[in-house]
Amino acid sequence: MSLNIKIVLVEPLYQGNVGSVTRVMKNFGFSDIVLVNPCKLEGEARAMSSHAHDVLESARITSSLAEAVENASIVIGTTGITGLKHDEHTRMPYYTPRELKKKLTGMSGTVAILFGREDQGFNNNELGSCDMILTIPTSDVYQIMNLSHAAGIVLYELSDIKAGDKPLARGFDLRLLYEHMGELLEDIDYPVHKKDKTMLMFKRIFGRAELIPREVQTLRGVIRRIRRKIKGDTFYQPDDQ
Amino acid sequence: MSLNIKIVLVEPLYQGNVGSVTRVMKNFGFSDIVLVNPCKLEGEARAMSSHAHDVLESARITSSLAEAVENASIVIGTTGITGLKHDEHTRMPYYTPRELKKKLTGMSGTVAILFGREDQGFNNNELGSCDMILTIPTSDVYQIMNLSHAAGIVLYELSDIKAGDKPLARGFDLRLLYEHMGELLEDIDYPVHKKDKTMLMFKRIFGRAELIPREVQTLRGVIRRIRRKIKGDTFYQPDDQ
Repeated sequence: MSLNIKIVLVEPLYQGNVGSVTRVMKNFGFSDIVLVNPCKLEGEARAMSSHAHDVLESARITSSLAEAVENASIVIGTTGITGLKHDEHTRMPYYTPRELKKKLTGMSGTVAILFGREDQGFNNNELGSCDMILTIPTSDVYQIMNLSHAAGIVLYELSDIKAGDKPLARGFDLRLLYEHMGELLEDIDYPVHKKDKTMLMFKRIFGRAELIPREVQTLRGVIRRIRRKIKGDTFYQPDDQ
Repeated sequence: MSLNIKIVLVEPLYQGNVGSVTRVMKNFGFSDIVLVNPCKLEGEARAMSSHAHDVLESARITSSLAEAVENASIVIGTTGITGLKHDEHTRMPYYTPRELKKKLTGMSGTVAILFGREDQGFNNNELGSCDMILTIPTSDVYQIMNLSHAAGIVLYELSDIKAGDKPLARGFDLRLLYEHMGELLEDIDYPVHKKDKTMLMFKRIFGRAELIPREVQTLRGVIRRIRRKIKGDTFYQPDDQ
């Protein structure tokens, strides 16, 4: 078992940054990179990647974030602290690189770490698809880091992480759990205007908790039984899916 | 009392890197930068500094490394691990950013952290003027980091250091100590071809030990007495300088 760290750049605007990210990835022993709708990658990307052009050339390019993270157990969005403070309701959990390292120690599975656009970061949909938020503690005076510098610091922290055999929940099961929770909210006539925020809250909570597969299975079982009870179907059914 | 971290770029070749270093300095709350014989600083340096052009503009420019570090208590050279392994004799002490942070916790004074040329790093004279060597642990596959990324990681580690009131020895006293040790080696007819390496070794040892001013004074006193004894001047002299 091992821990695979996948770097995902969401619509990067400057090819120099893409090249610099691949260089610092190779400096710290990482090579799995996905680019979602990137800018053109030409000479400057290659120049900045320096001796990491193999990493640059191996980058997978996708047209959607969903496709980029489809095999990840945990999706982590990297962002400045700015803006998070204003969204108390969803209680965005944010972690420093050191805290993330501690959380992932002993784990196995695939972790996708997302970096947003240089100018606009992530949109709300993209943030909503994250299980955790990662923030590098910066000076209040100037919080916005260059994309490749932010990636460098995250990778520096994670470069000597001790993986283990505690599996992170597989993304597929986790997504089914969320779908079923969404359906449960509909079953109980949960107010439509609150549903998205509440679902986001669930994702945050389970993201923080780093569920293992057995826990995901058990939660899904509980939700199935609740939904059956609500529908008046009290007759025993085999506990399958 | 406080701890002042001074970043010194020795003959940087690419203005973009100088700009990027100032940006990441401001991100982590640092502003003291000295450039030794830098490349031309024009539009690209300013562009890469982004909202840190105040730091870029405040950079002090010197024509020698000695001038750049003259008020520093400790001079630290940042370099890749490569090459260090081959110089067992001088027993270069190298520290990771985390170890350096630990070493400097509780201290006050001025620490100069040097970054060398993008292509050649430091020459031997420059390395010889360092009290400590700082190395970022990288993958063996690709150890050479971009200058600004290396600076970013060092500054990230040092950004939340807890300073204190334990003074680092003042550079002036420390340099006098080294001069007197050099004279002592001459007094004892130490082989000329070994002298530089032995002096370098002394500097490494005292660099690691982070002398406080009283210790520097005491060491200088001991050396004075040894030299007097060697010269047969056993008559008591006041313990002045």
